[in-house]
Amino acid sequence: MLTMRMVDIISRKRDGFELSNEEITWFVQAYSNGDIPDYQASAFAMAVFFQGMTQKEAAALTIEMAGSGDQLDLSAIDGIKVDKHSTGGVGDKTTLILGPLVAALDIPVAKMSGRGLGHTGGTIDKLEAFEGFRTEMDQEDFVHLVNKNKLAVAGQSGNLTPADKKLYALRDVTGTVNSIPLIASSVMSKKIAAGADAIVLDVKTGSGAFMESLEEAKKLAYAMVDIGNSLNRRTMAVISNMDQPLGHFVGNALEVKEAVETLRGNGPEDLHELSVTLASHMAVLGGKATDEKEGRKLVESVLNDGTALEKMKQFVQSQGGNPAPIDNSDLFPAAEKQAAVTAQESGYVSRMQAARIGQAAMMLGAGRASKDDEIDYAAGIELKAKIGDYAAAGDTLAVIHATQADTTSAADMIRQAYSFSPQQVKKPALIYDSI
Amino acid sequence: MLTMRMVDIISRKRDGFELSNEEITWFVQAYSNGDIPDYQASAFAMAVFFQGMTQKEAAALTIEMAGSGDQLDLSAIDGIKVDKHSTGGVGDKTTLILGPLVAALDIPVAKMSGRGLGHTGGTIDKLEAFEGFRTEMDQEDFVHLVNKNKLAVAGQSGNLTPADKKLYALRDVTGTVNSIPLIASSVMSKKIAAGADAIVLDVKTGSGAFMESLEEAKKLAYAMVDIGNSLNRRTMAVISNMDQPLGHFVGNALEVKEAVETLRGNGPEDLHELSVTLASHMAVLGGKATDEKEGRKLVESVLNDGTALEKMKQFVQSQGGNPAPIDNSDLFPAAEKQAAVTAQESGYVSRMQAARIGQAAMMLGAGRASKDDEIDYAAGIELKAKIGDYAAAGDTLAVIHATQADTTSAADMIRQAYSFSPQQVKKPALIYDSI
Repeated sequence: MLTMRMVDIISRKRDGFELSNEEITWFVQAYSNGDIPDYQASAFAMAVFFQGMTQKEAAALTIEMAGSGDQLDLSAIDGIKVDKHSTGGVGDKTTLILGPLVAALDIPVAKMSGRGLGHTGGTIDKLEAFEGFRTEMDQEDFVHLVNKNKLAVAGQSGNLTPADKKLYALRDVTGTVNSIPLIASSVMSKKIAAGADAIVLDVKTGSGAFMESLEEAKKLAYAMVDIGNSLNRRTMAVISNMDQPLGHFVGNALEVKEAVETLRGNGPEDLHELSVTLASHMAVLGGKATDEKEGRKLVESVLNDGTALEKMKQFVQSQGGNPAPIDNSDLFPAAEKQAAVTAQESGYVSRMQAARIGQAAMMLGAGRASKDDEIDYAAGIELKAKIGDYAAAGDTLAVIHATQADTTSAADMIRQAYSFSPQQVKKPALIYDSI
Repeated sequence: MLTMRMVDIISRKRDGFELSNEEITWFVQAYSNGDIPDYQASAFAMAVFFQGMTQKEAAALTIEMAGSGDQLDLSAIDGIKVDKHSTGGVGDKTTLILGPLVAALDIPVAKMSGRGLGHTGGTIDKLEAFEGFRTEMDQEDFVHLVNKNKLAVAGQSGNLTPADKKLYALRDVTGTVNSIPLIASSVMSKKIAAGADAIVLDVKTGSGAFMESLEEAKKLAYAMVDIGNSLNRRTMAVISNMDQPLGHFVGNALEVKEAVETLRGNGPEDLHELSVTLASHMAVLGGKATDEKEGRKLVESVLNDGTALEKMKQFVQSQGGNPAPIDNSDLFPAAEKQAAVTAQESGYVSRMQAARIGQAAMMLGAGRASKDDEIDYAAGIELKAKIGDYAAAGDTLAVIHATQADTTSAADMIRQAYSFSPQQVKKPALIYDSI
């Protein structure tokens, strides 16, 4: 190891110089080992906030964080393993749809997923709405399952990207989260450690997204695509709208139900379109199509002929779940209580604060505020009106699904999420760009 | 105490908002108490590095740091107590001259001084070249001495500006030293805690100064003057050249000797001029003159009639020192060895790297590299050639005064400090500006 001083690295970054690979490697390793104190790492992160990082620096940071802990060896899986990452949004159940859709094209989907905090559970929590579904498996079983079915979802185990975890926790309390190269490196390091050969990114923008402006979302998308490509992982990004929740349902079982409907070809337009678009890109990166158009044809065919839905059943069953609700959605966990949230004025929905819908879902028990919270699989929200829809006073805007008796504050939160206009309002574009 | 979150304060500063007095007060107090971790304070300091501080913010930071520990109560001293601060340079012995000069004008000089690290010792170390000189005294004796003689120098005791000390130590290792509002607040908080009613600042610029460019030096000067004035301490700043050492001597006893010569009216032109200029400003702030011109007349009279030199003797004697060397400079501690550093080429001195001269002095034992180092009072350097002077190859550029036998590396360092030009070179301006 070279002898370096962190104060020099901080100062060079502060003054706008490009750091060498050796400097970045040294920083990540020494910080992980506890040889660099948090107070130097946070000053460095703030310097990066202001000075940014070159593509080369961000790639070096990514690969070093990816290598800071366990790295999944998925080489025993045949084919190009295409992973997908969404920067997060309310009602985003695309992973549940993309898995079967892409696996049906014979592209291996080896998904590591977490539980996490948020307005709903993570992908694993949602899948546990299927009775008996289990995600604990060793690497051998995981590889075997993917080779057999082309699709498996495993709970995150082991010590993945500890350097990223440590740095992220520090950024969270030092005002340095919102740095594009640091966000991009964090996301990409996790994908690479999880063994992805290629990556499709869904970067959300709008009121319910981390990147509120399209411009910032594009910058983040370019940063991640550049990192992926410079580390020899073919990477593409779609920039999609998150000014309102995706689809009509927010919750765990409710989202699984909507995903199944989408796989049946009956999904809401926005969810269907985003899923098909992302799957088409995955088909391209997975080597099954030469361009998005060709990918789209393949995706639509497995959607229309029922192959994707069958894949979903096979996948659920293979992981111990009871697939019966796929054919009969009444069998999904259902909430005891349904309560309508009605409009207090008439007009066209002009704006939705997606984050408030998410917050309401969490209040109803659909998500975790802290990591030991229990999730209520049945709880959630069904949106009856979205941007551009007309609602007269008294019309139902949304239906609350809940176990708890008092849903007043969640209803208030949902009502606050809506804005109305007397004029007709255009539905927002769903996909802004593909990079 | 209001409930605040440091991460919000960091983020607001990062995004360019002005912090309220309450936010700054809360930060300084909570950081001092250990309630804010270093990693948040360092991220904050880096945000300040990039976003700066308004005058109001810097004043709030200053007063809060000044109040973080003991504050000297000098109210029992008659008159306006004018303090002087130099941002530091090689061969700067003006404090030794200004004390007697200003005290001779009946302006009280109550100087707290430190030892510190650097190319020579601090003011106290230099004064200890007088045998028997002592600076340990309690506050009562200090006040009494100042009232009696108008001049006393005490060693820094007590717990002055602990918040500044803690923050400075952190900045030193996180690349956040070089922030003008943070430097300005640090300097001014110490002056205010030390009881100054008015402050004259000597801001150095050039190769031997912390602020290498004139523009940066001016910014720092304005920042400090603004802070002082907004906290009701009349404050002025002189911006002076530090492209070469001040005067001809660098060392401890050597500098005292040169200071005494200057008080006798035989000082080198630059040292004489800077001392008179600073003293004239101090005369104005001390209420003895209405403008610098009038101040200068008063200063020159006490210099020419011997009053200032007598004041020096009285001062040394009052603090237990033997003043005999003032009348007979052979009595100052003298080095065993003197070695000439000769020119290897002929030409006009075009540039001097003052910092290298300082480094050479430290190598000879004149300064401390770490706080337990012993100082050699007699060691130092006499400069025979300065910018604009002509030296033929073989001429003496400087004379090394040393106890140690091997002075080769110090001689090399001194030689490296000099650059020569075949063309005649103008002597640099000494004083750039008064603010």
